[in-house]
Amino acid sequence: MDQAVTFITLGVADVAASRRFYVDGLGWQPLFEVPGDITFFQVGHGLVLGIWGLDSLGDDAGAPATPGTPFALASNVGSVEAVDAAVERARPAGATVLREPSWHEAIRIYHAYVADPDGHRWEIAFNPGLSVAEDGTVTLA
Amino acid sequence: MDQAVTFITLGVADVAASRRFYVDGLGWQPLFEVPGDITFFQVGHGLVLGIWGLDSLGDDAGAPATPGTPFALASNVGSVEAVDAAVERARPAGATVLREPSWHEAIRIYHAYVADPDGHRWEIAFNPGLSVAEDGTVTLA
Repeated sequence: MDQAVTFITLGVADVAASRRFYVDGLGWQPLFEVPGDITFFQVGHGLVLGIWGLDSLGDDAGAPATPGTPFALASNVGSVEAVDAAVERARPAGATVLREPSWHEAIRIYHAYVADPDGHRWEIAFNPGLSVAEDGTVTLA
Repeated sequence: MDQAVTFITLGVADVAASRRFYVDGLGWQPLFEVPGDITFFQVGHGLVLGIWGLDSLGDDAGAPATPGTPFALASNVGSVEAVDAAVERARPAGATVLREPSWHEAIRIYHAYVADPDGHRWEIAFNPGLSVAEDGTVTLA
């Protein structure tokens, strides 16, 4: 198993509701979709996120997929204001705000957590100690 | 919420056991770690994966994190043989093989699914219809 992630697939209860959240609510642009079944979005350099029925995901994996919140995805942005703006955009789209934007003093990150209609968690963060070189190498101060 | 993923954090029951799986078992190189607390790995261009206690992740998010298998991460590789090799590397490391490598005839992908010690699912896939341009743009045929 290579030290590489190329796809992230979120299992959702209702693909239409999930698509409305990401596309209509947040304004994301689909990369490719099979209507009513799966929608893919490009979310990074060579990186794709898919939303797919929990049942379909379980069938594909060969073992039932179960709901839960054992992970978080993060979208890092460039400023405190960008974190605030992202949360204010997500709220009316139907996101549940789990943590309002605030400074995490111990690690000096300004962040918030929101959940999509299935509870999948997104951290929106401004981390002054994070940098990404042109070749994609990440540095965490 | 930008159409971008920069961090993926997996909530795990036992950070030491999870670290053994990824570092000792799979041979992954940590990017940065706080011993006993969190380990980060670079898993793509500007993309980081962290393994962190489920309790810590819940505290950070402002709402308890619960176990479940509502998602899958995928690592795309370049050939059928590379899929087989990745599964044979993961098995002795302690991965549970949920789906042995095989062709998914309908979508013409050769793939397997394995689960880490917490059940977090990884698809290892060879997709001849997938290409990534130099600038990171993904094409799905």
